[in-house]
Amino acid sequence: MSFENVRVVMVETTHPGNIGAAARAMKNMFLSRLYLVNPKVFPHAEATARASGADDVLARAKVCGSLEEAVAGCALVFGASARLRRIDWPTLDARACGEKAAAAARGGEEVALVFGRESAGLTNGEMDRCNYLVHIPSNPQYSSLNIAAAVQVFSYEVAMGLGATVPAQAQDERASAEEVNGFYRHLEQALVDIRFLDPDNPRQLMRRLKRLFNRAELDKTEVQILRGILTAAQKQADAK
Amino acid sequence: MSFENVRVVMVETTHPGNIGAAARAMKNMFLSRLYLVNPKVFPHAEATARASGADDVLARAKVCGSLEEAVAGCALVFGASARLRRIDWPTLDARACGEKAAAAARGGEEVALVFGRESAGLTNGEMDRCNYLVHIPSNPQYSSLNIAAAVQVFSYEVAMGLGATVPAQAQDERASAEEVNGFYRHLEQALVDIRFLDPDNPRQLMRRLKRLFNRAELDKTEVQILRGILTAAQKQADAK
Repeated sequence: MSFENVRVVMVETTHPGNIGAAARAMKNMFLSRLYLVNPKVFPHAEATARASGADDVLARAKVCGSLEEAVAGCALVFGASARLRRIDWPTLDARACGEKAAAAARGGEEVALVFGRESAGLTNGEMDRCNYLVHIPSNPQYSSLNIAAAVQVFSYEVAMGLGATVPAQAQDERASAEEVNGFYRHLEQALVDIRFLDPDNPRQLMRRLKRLFNRAELDKTEVQILRGILTAAQKQADAK
Repeated sequence: MSFENVRVVMVETTHPGNIGAAARAMKNMFLSRLYLVNPKVFPHAEATARASGADDVLARAKVCGSLEEAVAGCALVFGASARLRRIDWPTLDARACGEKAAAAARGGEEVALVFGRESAGLTNGEMDRCNYLVHIPSNPQYSSLNIAAAVQVFSYEVAMGLGATVPAQAQDERASAEEVNGFYRHLEQALVDIRFLDPDNPRQLMRRLKRLFNRAELDKTEVQILRGILTAAQKQADAK
Protein backbone atom coordinates (compact mmCIF):
# COMPACT_ATOMS: atom_id res chain seq x y z
CA MET A 1 0.00 0.00 0.00
CA SER A 2 1.62 3.26 -1.18
CA PHE A 3 0.45 5.39 1.75
CA GLU A 4 2.39 3.07 4.06
CA ASN A 5 5.63 4.12 2.35
CA VAL A 6 5.25 7.75 3.43
CA ARG A 7 6.37 8.86 6.87
CA VAL A 8 6.03 12.26 8.52
CA VAL A 9 9.00 13.32 10.65
CA MET A 10 8.64 16.15 13.18
CA VAL A 11 11.93 17.46 14.56
CA GLU A 12 12.08 18.78 18.15
CA THR A 13 8.47 19.88 18.23
CA THR A 14 7.82 22.11 21.24
CA HIS A 15 4.02 22.02 21.61
CA PRO A 16 2.40 18.60 22.07
CA GLY A 17 -0.84 20.05 20.67
CA ASN A 18 0.89 20.45 17.33
CA ILE A 19 1.90 16.78 17.37
CA GLY A 20 -1.72 15.80 17.96
CA ALA A 21 -3.05 18.12 15.26
CA ALA A 22 -0.45 16.77 12.84
CA ALA A 23 -1.53 13.19 13.61
CA ARG A 24 -5.14 14.12 12.84
CA ALA A 25 -4.10 15.84 9.58
CA MET A 26 -2.13 12.75 8.56
CA LYS A 27 -4.92 10.32 9.29
CA ASN A 28 -7.42 12.46 7.35
CA MET A 29 -5.06 12.08 4.41
CA PHE A 30 -4.53 8.28 4.77
CA LEU A 31 -1.09 8.60 6.38
CA SER A 32 -0.22 6.82 9.60
CA ARG A 33 3.54 6.71 10.13
CA LEU A 34 4.70 9.49 12.45
CA TYR A 35 8.32 9.86 13.60
CA LEU A 36 9.19 12.29 16.39
CA VAL A 37 12.80 13.42 16.77
CA ASN A 38 13.40 14.50 20.37
CA PRO A 39 9.94 15.96 21.01
CA LYS A 40 9.92 18.32 23.99
CA VAL A 41 7.02 16.46 25.64
CA PHE A 42 5.45 13.28 24.36
CA PRO A 43 3.12 11.60 25.03
CA HIS A 44 0.95 14.37 26.47
CA ALA A 45 -2.77 14.92 27.11
CA GLU A 46 -2.80 17.95 24.80
CA ALA A 47 -1.46 15.83 21.92
CA THR A 48 -4.17 13.24 22.49
CA ALA A 49 -6.88 15.91 22.72
CA ARG A 50 -5.89 17.59 19.47
CA ALA A 51 -5.46 14.24 17.71
CA SER A 52 -9.21 13.88 18.16
CA GLY A 53 -9.59 10.24 17.20
CA ALA A 54 -6.24 9.86 15.49
CA ASP A 55 -4.74 8.50 18.71
CA ASP A 56 -3.84 5.31 16.84
CA VAL A 57 -1.33 7.40 14.86
CA LEU A 58 0.08 8.77 18.13
CA ALA A 59 0.24 5.30 19.66
CA ARG A 60 2.20 4.06 16.67
CA ALA A 61 4.53 7.11 16.60
CA LYS A 62 8.25 6.35 16.82
CA VAL A 63 10.34 8.58 19.04
CA CYS A 64 13.89 8.92 17.65
CA GLY A 65 17.09 10.44 18.91
CA SER A 66 18.17 11.98 15.61
CA LEU A 67 16.90 12.92 12.17
CA GLU A 68 19.25 10.31 10.73
CA GLU A 69 17.50 7.60 12.72
CA ALA A 70 14.06 8.89 11.66
CA VAL A 71 14.82 8.87 7.93
CA ALA A 72 16.76 5.59 7.94
CA GLY A 73 15.86 3.55 4.87
CA CYS A 74 14.31 6.48 2.99
CA ALA A 75 15.08 6.90 -0.69
CA LEU A 76 13.69 10.43 -0.76
CA VAL A 77 13.68 13.00 2.03
CA PHE A 78 11.73 16.25 1.65
CA GLY A 79 12.43 19.05 4.13
CA ALA A 80 9.63 21.57 4.68
CA SER A 81 11.04 25.02 5.17
CA ALA A 82 9.12 28.28 5.42
CA ARG A 83 11.96 30.58 4.60
CA LEU A 84 14.14 30.33 1.53
CA ARG A 85 17.41 30.45 3.37
CA ARG A 86 19.33 28.17 1.08
CA ILE A 87 20.04 29.36 -2.39
CA ASP A 88 21.97 26.24 -3.20
CA TRP A 89 19.56 23.39 -2.69
CA PRO A 90 16.97 21.81 -4.99
CA THR A 91 13.58 23.27 -4.19
CA LEU A 92 10.02 22.17 -4.96
CA ASP A 93 6.61 23.61 -4.18
CA ALA A 94 4.10 21.51 -2.24
CA ARG A 95 2.36 20.22 -5.34
CA ALA A 96 5.54 19.05 -7.02
CA CYS A 97 6.60 17.52 -3.70
CA GLY A 98 3.32 15.59 -3.48
CA GLU A 99 3.70 14.31 -7.02
CA LYS A 100 7.31 13.26 -6.55
CA ALA A 101 6.66 11.65 -3.16
CA ALA A 102 3.64 9.80 -4.54
CA ALA A 103 5.56 8.50 -7.56
CA ALA A 104 8.35 7.19 -5.32
CA ALA A 105 5.93 5.65 -2.79
CA ARG A 106 4.01 3.99 -5.59
CA GLY A 107 7.30 2.56 -6.84
CA GLY A 108 7.85 0.95 -3.43
CA GLU A 109 10.37 3.48 -2.12
CA GLU A 110 10.31 4.88 1.40
CA VAL A 111 9.66 8.61 1.55
CA ALA A 112 9.98 11.09 4.43
CA LEU A 113 8.38 14.50 4.83
CA VAL A 114 10.41 16.35 7.46
CA PHE A 115 9.08 19.29 9.49
CA GLY A 116 11.36 21.45 11.65
CA ARG A 117 10.93 23.23 14.96
CA GLU A 118 7.97 25.62 15.34
CA SER A 119 10.24 28.62 15.83
CA ALA A 120 13.47 27.77 14.09
CA GLY A 121 12.67 25.23 11.38
CA LEU A 122 15.46 22.89 10.30
CA THR A 123 19.17 23.45 10.85
CA ASN A 124 21.52 23.64 7.88
CA GLY A 125 22.83 20.19 8.78
CA GLU A 126 19.30 18.78 8.74
CA MET A 127 18.55 20.45 5.41
CA ASP A 128 21.70 18.87 3.96
CA ARG A 129 20.12 15.49 4.69
CA CYS A 130 17.13 16.37 2.46
CA ASN A 131 17.00 15.63 -1.25
CA TYR A 132 14.67 18.58 -1.68
CA LEU A 133 13.59 21.59 0.32
CA VAL A 134 9.86 22.04 -0.13
CA HIS A 135 7.71 25.13 0.29
CA ILE A 136 4.07 26.03 0.37
CA PRO A 137 3.58 29.08 -1.82
CA SER A 138 2.51 31.68 0.72
CA ASN A 139 2.30 35.35 1.55
CA PRO A 140 5.90 36.59 1.75
CA GLN A 141 4.82 39.07 4.44
CA TYR A 142 3.41 36.24 6.55
CA SER A 143 4.82 33.00 5.29
CA SER A 144 5.10 30.79 8.34
CA LEU A 145 2.24 28.29 8.58
CA ASN A 146 1.38 26.55 11.80
CA ILE A 147 3.30 23.28 11.67
CA ALA A 148 0.17 21.11 11.75
CA ALA A 149 -1.33 23.23 8.95
CA ALA A 150 1.82 22.61 6.92
CA VAL A 151 1.57 18.86 7.64
CA GLN A 152 -2.05 19.09 6.43
CA VAL A 153 -1.13 20.73 3.11
CA PHE A 154 1.80 18.39 2.35
CA SER A 155 -0.19 15.30 3.37
CA TYR A 156 -3.06 16.53 1.19
CA GLU A 157 -0.74 16.94 -1.79
CA VAL A 158 0.73 13.46 -1.26
CA ALA A 159 -2.80 12.01 -1.06
CA MET A 160 -3.77 13.86 -4.25
CA GLY A 161 -0.60 12.54 -5.89
CA LEU A 162 -1.59 9.04 -4.83
CA GLY A 163 -4.98 9.50 -6.46
CA ALA A 164 -7.25 10.29 -3.51
CA THR A 165 -10.65 11.32 -4.78
CA VAL A 166 -14.00 12.38 -3.46
CA PRO A 167 -16.15 9.23 -3.62
CA ALA A 168 -18.38 9.24 -6.66
CA GLN A 169 -21.90 10.23 -5.78
CA ALA A 170 -25.03 8.37 -6.62
CA GLN A 171 -26.42 10.56 -9.38
CA ASP A 172 -29.56 10.44 -11.42
CA GLU A 173 -28.90 9.13 -14.89
CA ARG A 174 -28.26 11.86 -17.41
CA ALA A 175 -31.01 12.43 -19.99
CA SER A 176 -30.35 11.05 -23.48
CA ALA A 177 -30.04 13.34 -26.49
CA GLU A 178 -33.50 12.20 -27.63
CA GLU A 179 -35.04 13.09 -24.29
CA VAL A 180 -33.38 16.49 -24.27
CA ASN A 181 -34.49 17.19 -27.85
CA GLY A 182 -38.02 16.10 -27.00
CA PHE A 183 -37.95 18.57 -24.15
CA TYR A 184 -36.71 21.36 -26.46
CA ARG A 185 -39.54 20.72 -28.96
CA HIS A 186 -42.00 20.67 -26.08
CA LEU A 187 -40.54 23.89 -24.67
CA GLU A 188 -40.74 25.69 -27.99
CA GLN A 189 -44.36 24.65 -28.52
CA ALA A 190 -45.29 25.63 -24.97
CA LEU A 191 -43.68 29.06 -25.40
CA VAL A 192 -45.77 29.56 -28.52
CA ASP A 193 -48.90 28.34 -26.72
CA ILE A 194 -48.44 30.79 -23.85
CA ARG A 195 -47.74 33.53 -26.41
CA PHE A 196 -44.23 34.19 -25.23
CA LEU A 197 -42.60 33.11 -28.48
CA ASP A 198 -43.76 34.49 -31.82
CA PRO A 199 -43.16 31.71 -34.38
CA ASP A 200 -42.88 34.32 -37.13
CA ASN A 201 -40.17 36.20 -35.25
CA PRO A 202 -38.39 33.70 -33.00
CA ARG A 203 -35.10 35.61 -32.79
CA GLN A 204 -32.44 33.91 -30.65
CA LEU A 205 -34.75 32.78 -27.86
CA MET A 206 -34.58 28.98 -28.32
CA ARG A 207 -30.87 29.13 -28.92
CA ARG A 208 -30.34 30.97 -25.64
CA LEU A 209 -32.56 28.54 -23.74
CA LYS A 210 -30.85 25.49 -25.25
CA ARG A 211 -27.50 26.89 -24.28
CA LEU A 212 -28.70 27.27 -20.70
CA PHE A 213 -30.15 23.75 -20.44
CA ASN A 214 -27.23 22.12 -22.19
CA ARG A 215 -24.93 23.68 -19.65
CA ALA A 216 -27.05 22.26 -16.86
CA GLU A 217 -26.63 18.68 -18.17
CA LEU A 218 -30.19 17.62 -17.38
CA ASP A 219 -30.89 14.25 -15.83
CA LYS A 220 -33.90 12.10 -16.68
CA THR A 221 -35.96 13.17 -13.69
CA GLU A 222 -35.37 16.84 -14.40
CA VAL A 223 -36.57 16.45 -17.98
CA GLN A 224 -39.76 14.86 -16.67
CA ILE A 225 -40.29 17.67 -14.16
CA LEU A 226 -39.69 20.38 -16.75
CA ARG A 227 -42.07 18.74 -19.24
CA GLY A 228 -44.66 18.50 -16.47
CA ILE A 229 -44.34 22.23 -15.91
CA LEU A 230 -44.69 22.89 -19.65
CA THR A 231 -47.81 20.74 -19.87
CA ALA A 232 -49.35 22.59 -16.93
CA ALA A 233 -48.60 25.94 -18.57
CA GLN A 234 -50.06 24.73 -21.86
CA LYS A 235 -53.27 23.71 -20.07
CA GLN A 236 -53.61 27.18 -18.62
CA ALA A 237 -53.11 28.69 -22.06
CA ASP A 238 -55.78 26.36 -23.54
CA ALA A 239 -58.22 27.29 -20.80
CA LYS A 240 -58.01 31.00 -21.51
CA MET B 1 -6.72 42.58 -6.37
CA SER B 2 -8.19 39.09 -6.85
CA PHE B 3 -7.48 37.85 -3.31
CA GLU B 4 -9.68 40.67 -2.00
CA ASN B 5 -12.66 39.13 -3.80
CA VAL B 6 -12.50 35.94 -1.75
CA ARG B 7 -14.12 35.77 1.67
CA VAL B 8 -14.10 32.95 4.21
CA VAL B 9 -17.35 32.45 6.10
CA MET B 10 -17.40 30.42 9.35
CA VAL B 11 -20.86 29.45 10.55
CA GLU B 12 -21.54 29.15 14.31
CA THR B 13 -18.00 28.18 15.19
CA THR B 14 -17.81 26.87 18.75
CA HIS B 15 -14.11 27.13 19.60
CA PRO B 16 -12.51 30.57 19.35
CA GLY B 17 -9.12 28.86 18.86
CA ASN B 18 -10.37 27.55 15.54
CA ILE B 19 -11.32 31.08 14.44
CA GLY B 20 -7.80 32.26 15.26
CA ALA B 21 -6.14 29.31 13.49
CA ALA B 22 -8.36 29.92 10.44
CA ALA B 23 -7.33 33.60 10.37
CA ARG B 24 -3.68 32.56 10.39
CA ALA B 25 -4.27 30.01 7.61
CA MET B 26 -6.04 32.67 5.53
CA LYS B 27 -3.31 35.26 5.96
CA ASN B 28 -0.61 32.73 5.05
CA MET B 29 -2.53 32.24 1.80
CA PHE B 30 -3.02 35.98 1.04
CA LEU B 31 -6.68 36.05 2.19
CA SER B 32 -7.95 38.62 4.66
CA ARG B 33 -11.75 38.80 4.61
CA LEU B 34 -13.26 36.71 7.40
CA TYR B 35 -17.02 36.59 8.10
CA LEU B 36 -18.31 34.97 11.28
CA VAL B 37 -21.96 33.93 11.44
CA ASN B 38 -23.07 33.85 15.09
CA PRO B 39 -19.76 32.69 16.58
CA LYS B 40 -20.21 31.22 20.06
CA VAL B 41 -17.52 33.49 21.53
CA PHE B 42 -15.74 36.25 19.69
CA PRO B 43 -13.50 38.09 20.21
CA HIS B 44 -11.59 35.87 22.60
CA ALA B 45 -8.02 35.58 23.87
CA GLU B 46 -7.73 32.03 22.51
CA ALA B 47 -8.61 33.28 18.99
CA THR B 48 -5.95 35.98 19.22
CA ALA B 49 -3.35 33.52 20.54
CA ARG B 50 -3.92 31.00 17.75
CA ALA B 51 -4.03 33.76 15.10
CA SER B 52 -0.37 34.29 15.98
CA GLY B 53 0.22 37.56 14.14
CA ALA B 54 -2.86 37.41 11.92
CA ASP B 55 -4.77 39.53 14.41
CA ASP B 56 -5.36 42.10 11.65
CA VAL B 57 -7.60 39.50 9.98
CA LEU B 58 -9.48 39.02 13.25
CA ALA B 59 -9.78 42.78 13.78
CA ARG B 60 -11.28 43.13 10.30
CA ALA B 61 -13.64 40.12 10.72
CA LYS B 62 -17.35 40.85 10.21
CA VAL B 63 -19.75 39.23 12.63
CA CYS B 64 -23.08 38.46 10.90
CA GLY B 65 -26.48 37.29 12.07
CA SER B 66 -27.09 34.89 9.20
CA LEU B 67 -25.36 33.08 6.35
CA GLU B 68 -27.47 35.15 3.95
CA GLU B 69 -25.94 38.33 5.35
CA ALA B 70 -22.42 36.87 5.18
CA VAL B 71 -22.64 35.89 1.51
CA ALA B 72 -24.51 39.01 0.35
CA GLY B 73 -23.15 40.16 -3.00
CA CYS B 74 -21.40 36.86 -3.78
CA ALA B 75 -21.66 35.45 -7.29
CA LEU B 76 -20.34 32.06 -6.20
CA VAL B 77 -20.77 30.34 -2.85
CA PHE B 78 -18.85 27.15 -2.05
CA GLY B 79 -19.94 25.11 0.97
CA ALA B 80 -17.31 22.90 2.57
CA SER B 81 -18.81 19.68 3.79
CA ALA B 82 -17.02 16.67 5.18
CA ARG B 83 -19.73 14.15 4.63
CA LEU B 84 -21.46 13.50 1.35
CA ARG B 85 -24.94 13.84 2.70
CA ARG B 86 -26.49 15.34 -0.37
CA ILE B 87 -26.76 13.21 -3.44
CA ASP B 88 -28.48 15.98 -5.34
CA TRP B 89 -26.13 18.93 -5.30
CA PRO B 90 -23.22 19.89 -7.58
CA THR B 91 -19.98 18.77 -5.97
CA LEU B 92 -16.33 19.70 -6.50
CA ASP B 93 -13.11 18.60 -4.90
CA ALA B 94 -10.86 21.20 -3.26
CA ARG B 95 -8.66 21.62 -6.32
CA ALA B 96 -11.57 22.24 -8.69
CA CYS B 97 -13.05 24.60 -6.09
CA GLY B 98 -9.81 26.58 -5.94
CA GLU B 99 -9.65 26.84 -9.71
CA LYS B 100 -13.27 27.91 -10.05
CA ALA B 101 -13.07 30.39 -7.18
CA ALA B 102 -9.85 31.85 -8.57
CA ALA B 103 -11.31 32.25 -12.06
CA ALA B 104 -14.35 34.06 -10.67
CA ALA B 105 -12.28 36.27 -8.35
CA ARG B 106 -9.95 37.15 -11.19
CA GLY B 107 -13.03 38.12 -13.22
CA GLY B 108 -14.01 40.58 -10.50
CA GLU B 109 -16.74 38.44 -8.91
CA GLU B 110 -17.18 38.05 -5.17
CA VAL B 111 -16.64 34.50 -3.94
CA ALA B 112 -17.40 32.90 -0.56
CA LEU B 113 -15.93 29.76 0.98
CA VAL B 114 -18.36 28.64 3.70
CA PHE B 115 -17.37 26.38 6.62
CA GLY B 116 -19.97 24.84 8.93
CA ARG B 117 -20.03 24.04 12.62
CA GLU B 118 -17.20 21.90 14.05
CA SER B 119 -19.57 19.10 15.02
CA ALA B 120 -22.53 19.37 12.68
CA GLY B 121 -21.30 21.12 9.52
CA LEU B 122 -23.87 23.01 7.46
CA THR B 123 -27.64 22.54 7.63
CA ASN B 124 -29.54 21.51 4.54
CA GLY B 125 -30.91 25.05 4.27
CA GLU B 126 -27.38 26.47 4.34
CA MET B 127 -26.20 23.97 1.73
CA ASP B 128 -29.08 25.05 -0.52
CA ARG B 129 -27.56 28.53 -0.52
CA CYS B 130 -24.32 27.14 -2.00
CA ASN B 131 -23.66 26.85 -5.71
CA TYR B 132 -21.34 23.95 -4.99
CA LEU B 133 -20.59 21.63 -2.13
CA VAL B 134 -16.85 21.15 -1.92
CA HIS B 135 -14.86 18.32 -0.37
CA ILE B 136 -11.27 17.56 0.45
CA PRO B 137 -10.54 14.03 -0.75
CA SER B 138 -9.89 12.24 2.52
CA ASN B 139 -9.87 8.94 4.34
CA PRO B 140 -13.49 7.72 4.36
CA GLN B 141 -12.81 6.08 7.74
CA TYR B 142 -11.67 9.39 9.19
CA SER B 143 -12.84 12.16 6.91
CA SER B 144 -13.49 15.11 9.17
CA LEU B 145 -10.65 17.62 9.14
CA ASN B 146 -10.21 20.17 11.86
CA ILE B 147 -12.03 23.27 10.57
CA ALA B 148 -8.89 25.44 10.51
CA ALA B 149 -7.07 22.66 8.63
CA ALA B 150 -9.90 22.66 6.08
CA VAL B 151 -9.67 26.46 5.78
CA GLN B 152 -5.93 25.98 5.21
CA VAL B 153 -6.41 23.50 2.36
CA PHE B 154 -9.15 25.48 0.58
CA SER B 155 -7.25 28.77 1.00
CA TYR B 156 -4.15 27.05 -0.34
CA GLU B 157 -6.04 25.82 -3.39
CA VAL B 158 -7.49 29.29 -4.04
CA ALA B 159 -4.01 30.80 -3.75
CA MET B 160 -2.65 28.17 -6.15
CA GLY B 161 -5.53 28.95 -8.52
CA LEU B 162 -4.62 32.62 -8.31
CA GLY B 163 -1.06 31.78 -9.26
CA ALA B 164 0.77 31.87 -5.93
CA THR B 165 4.30 30.59 -6.38
CA VAL B 166 7.40 29.99 -4.38
CA PRO B 167 9.63 33.02 -5.07
CA ALA B 168 12.25 32.22 -7.66
CA GLN B 169 15.61 31.57 -6.10
CA ALA B 170 18.86 33.18 -6.99
CA GLN B 171 20.49 30.39 -8.93
CA ASP B 172 23.81 30.02 -10.66
CA GLU B 173 23.43 30.40 -14.39
CA ARG B 174 22.96 27.10 -16.15
CA ALA B 175 25.87 25.90 -18.25
CA SER B 176 25.52 26.33 -22.02
CA ALA B 177 25.41 23.32 -24.35
CA GLU B 178 28.97 24.16 -25.46
CA GLU B 179 30.22 24.17 -21.90
CA VAL B 180 28.51 20.87 -21.14
CA ASN B 181 29.88 19.28 -24.31
CA GLY B 182 33.35 20.58 -23.47
CA PHE B 183 33.03 18.90 -20.11
CA TYR B 184 31.90 15.61 -21.71
CA ARG B 185 34.93 15.61 -24.04
CA HIS B 186 37.18 16.39 -21.09
CA LEU B 187 35.54 13.66 -19.01
CA GLU B 188 35.98 11.05 -21.74
CA GLN B 189 39.65 11.95 -22.24
CA ALA B 190 40.25 11.89 -18.48
CA LEU B 191 38.63 8.48 -18.14
CA VAL B 192 40.94 7.20 -20.85
CA ASP B 193 43.94 8.83 -19.16
CA ILE B 194 43.21 7.22 -15.82
CA ARG B 195 42.67 3.91 -17.64
CA PHE B 196 39.06 3.55 -16.60
CA LEU B 197 37.72 3.76 -20.15
CA ASP B 198 39.14 1.58 -22.88
CA PRO B 199 38.78 3.60 -26.11
CA ASP B 200 38.67 0.36 -28.11
CA ASN B 201 35.80 -0.98 -26.07
CA PRO B 202 33.89 2.01 -24.69
CA ARG B 203 30.58 0.20 -24.25
CA GLN B 204 27.78 2.39 -22.85
CA LEU B 205 29.87 4.24 -20.30
CA MET B 206 29.80 7.77 -21.73
CA ARG B 207 26.14 7.47 -22.55
CA ARG B 208 25.34 6.53 -18.96
CA LEU B 209 27.45 9.36 -17.60
CA LYS B 210 25.91 11.91 -19.96
CA ARG B 211 22.46 10.80 -18.92
CA LEU B 212 23.39 11.37 -15.30
CA PHE B 213 24.87 14.83 -15.82
CA ASN B 214 22.12 15.95 -18.17
CA ARG B 215 19.60 15.09 -15.51
CA ALA B 216 21.51 17.21 -13.02
CA GLU B 217 21.27 20.33 -15.24
CA LEU B 218 24.76 21.55 -14.46
CA ASP B 219 25.41 25.22 -13.77
CA LYS B 220 28.53 27.09 -14.93
CA THR B 221 30.31 26.84 -11.58
CA GLU B 222 29.69 23.11 -11.35
CA VAL B 223 31.19 22.55 -14.81
CA GLN B 224 34.30 24.43 -13.69
CA ILE B 225 34.57 22.37 -10.51
CA LEU B 226 34.13 19.09 -12.34
CA ARG B 227 36.71 20.01 -14.97
CA GLY B 228 39.09 20.99 -12.16
CA ILE B 229 38.65 17.52 -10.71
CA LEU B 230 39.27 15.91 -14.09
CA THR B 231 42.44 17.94 -14.61
CA ALA B 232 43.70 16.92 -11.17
CA ALA B 233 43.03 13.26 -11.96
CA GLN B 234 44.79 13.58 -15.32
CA LYS B 235 47.82 15.04 -13.59
CA GLN B 236 48.00 12.05 -11.27
CA ALA B 237 47.76 9.72 -14.25
CA ASP B 238 50.57 11.58 -16.04
CA ALA B 239 52.77 11.42 -12.94
CA LYS B 240 52.57 7.66 -12.74
